[in-house]
Amino acid sequence: MVEDRNGRLRPLWDRYGSRIEAELRRALEERDLVHYGLMRYHLGWEDERGGRQSSRRGKLLRPLLCLTSCEAVGGDAERVLPLAASLELLHNFSLIHDDIEDGSPQRHGRDTVWRVWGVPLALNAGDGMFALAHVTLHRLRAGGVSAEQILAARGLLDFASLRLCEGQYLDLAFEQRIDVSCDDYLEMVSGKTAALVSAAAASGALVADGEGRAVEAFKQFGELLGFAFQIRDDLLGIWGEPTETGKPTGEDIQARKKSFPVVYALENATPAGREALRDIYAKPAIDDEDVARAVAALESADARNRSQEAAAGYAAKAMRQLEGLDLVAERRRDLELLADYFVNREI
Amino acid sequence: MVEDRNGRLRPLWDRYGSRIEAELRRALEERDLVHYGLMRYHLGWEDERGGRQSSRRGKLLRPLLCLTSCEAVGGDAERVLPLAASLELLHNFSLIHDDIEDGSPQRHGRDTVWRVWGVPLALNAGDGMFALAHVTLHRLRAGGVSAEQILAARGLLDFASLRLCEGQYLDLAFEQRIDVSCDDYLEMVSGKTAALVSAAAASGALVADGEGRAVEAFKQFGELLGFAFQIRDDLLGIWGEPTETGKPTGEDIQARKKSFPVVYALENATPAGREALRDIYAKPAIDDEDVARAVAALESADARNRSQEAAAGYAAKAMRQLEGLDLVAERRRDLELLADYFVNREI
Repeated sequence: MVEDRNGRLRPLWDRYGSRIEAELRRALEERDLVHYGLMRYHLGWEDERGGRQSSRRGKLLRPLLCLTSCEAVGGDAERVLPLAASLELLHNFSLIHDDIEDGSPQRHGRDTVWRVWGVPLALNAGDGMFALAHVTLHRLRAGGVSAEQILAARGLLDFASLRLCEGQYLDLAFEQRIDVSCDDYLEMVSGKTAALVSAAAASGALVADGEGRAVEAFKQFGELLGFAFQIRDDLLGIWGEPTETGKPTGEDIQARKKSFPVVYALENATPAGREALRDIYAKPAIDDEDVARAVAALESADARNRSQEAAAGYAAKAMRQLEGLDLVAERRRDLELLADYFVNREI
Repeated sequence: MVEDRNGRLRPLWDRYGSRIEAELRRALEERDLVHYGLMRYHLGWEDERGGRQSSRRGKLLRPLLCLTSCEAVGGDAERVLPLAASLELLHNFSLIHDDIEDGSPQRHGRDTVWRVWGVPLALNAGDGMFALAHVTLHRLRAGGVSAEQILAARGLLDFASLRLCEGQYLDLAFEQRIDVSCDDYLEMVSGKTAALVSAAAASGALVADGEGRAVEAFKQFGELLGFAFQIRDDLLGIWGEPTETGKPTGEDIQARKKSFPVVYALENATPAGREALRDIYAKPAIDDEDVARAVAALESADARNRSQEAAAGYAAKAMRQLEGLDLVAERRRDLELLADYFVNREI
């Protein structure tokens, strides 16, 4: 975390970080039920017993993107804070449920919610966080956002939530399939990741810009950034440093995830390389040696470099969506900073 | 189902049934992903392979309550249909997740979604239905409901969803506790069941009645009806006919649920009766013989009759909340019909 907050995103952190965190805490304060303790644990605020903890906090990328997009088109971030908090809650509800669905024992080096409290309570805590994301949006009214604008922003978030579940369905379904093409992959990521990133950018622009001129451009911008984000995420899932990512190397491969490097290699490796990957993914259980062989096959297909190029390409294409818009110059630079971070982050 | 649709609720069915079903189908049509097939299966429209099935359909009690409340205060049910459909989707998302949390293998005599497709896809289908409930609400705008009113109605539904998860948390937590009082029980049911029933009545009245005079009364009315509904539900879970309820007798007791008859008996049985119940609930596994002994203990405490009296009492109190309101006479009679059904239904 320290790397993030003091690293290249420092200017955005200084500008918005504490305000986003305060808004998130407001959403979860004075909620005594242990049910909410599970949510605070997941967010890294508390330990298993409800004691304070602040070692690990989220990167808040969706809120940062939302607020920066808002101010880029001349809006006031202060009015949009509940929207930013809602986006973070939506993202985290999906993580709590993903960890159950994928059977992941750890996230950011800590036991996942279901590992600590069991599946029933963890599942229900995720639902509660989904509900809380909606309740939080009603605070926009107090900030002077019109009912029409709130409804339009909710439309973006509602649709993104629907797409998120569609993408998650495909992600799970692809575990059982080997014939996943790059197009299939992009369809999956468009739902699983890009929909919410797109909604973050577009909703921020929408609330700022009553006429909605920029909204469509920010929607495209966010979707392309989402692709960049996920491809870099997939790369880190294979070649990242576990102490940085908080995720064991090989977990994606062992779960037969059709991540970008794998899908790329299945389409572009030599026949022998493809065969090796198919063999490994067809095994009833994938051990550490298999993971090492799979990684070797990916590397011989140059999948690591090609993934990084693809991520960078999407980020560049994302920035081009904003060309021609009359944006606040400093905030446009912040958006470039974010796009750059999305494709070069280590954690 | 036949009993319901041709029975005492027949007038409401004739009036609203096909319109509610059409709106629900609209929400789920042209959604090809298998993900949505899981939802249609849960709703009883399709079998495991996506083939049509129409043997068993939901009772649609929350939509019926919403539309009747709307028309009782002079509104037009047609405009409120998306709200009615959304309430049914919210209710069913919670059932899909409840079945996972409780490990229930069957619902209405059919395998539950997680039994057919496994926990990961079932969990995600529930999330998708939660999202779909929100997307559906945007159709209210096309029916001419104002942004302000939609936002106010969403406020009721959002808060109810939050309360629903709080109640579900308590329901799960109470499985591990024996010292659950009637007050604890009511707090749990207030979230788990009554919040959404209350939102159904109140949101129907709210959209009909711009000034919201009746909304508070309908909120109370719905909450009390929710208590009546759950107590009758608890009674049927122990003494109902499994072929009618579609739920194996004894399931609640085996899951150590603190249902109303149990909580009543733990507070009011003879010392010997209480001791017997505590002993059974403390066993590592509860077999059929234990269930029979528990039921005998409940009956000797007169818990069955007292539960029925409590349900009837809440329904009567619910109706009293509407006294003094200027309601359409015929619709007030329909609400009485619903309240009567809530406490006398067999399924």
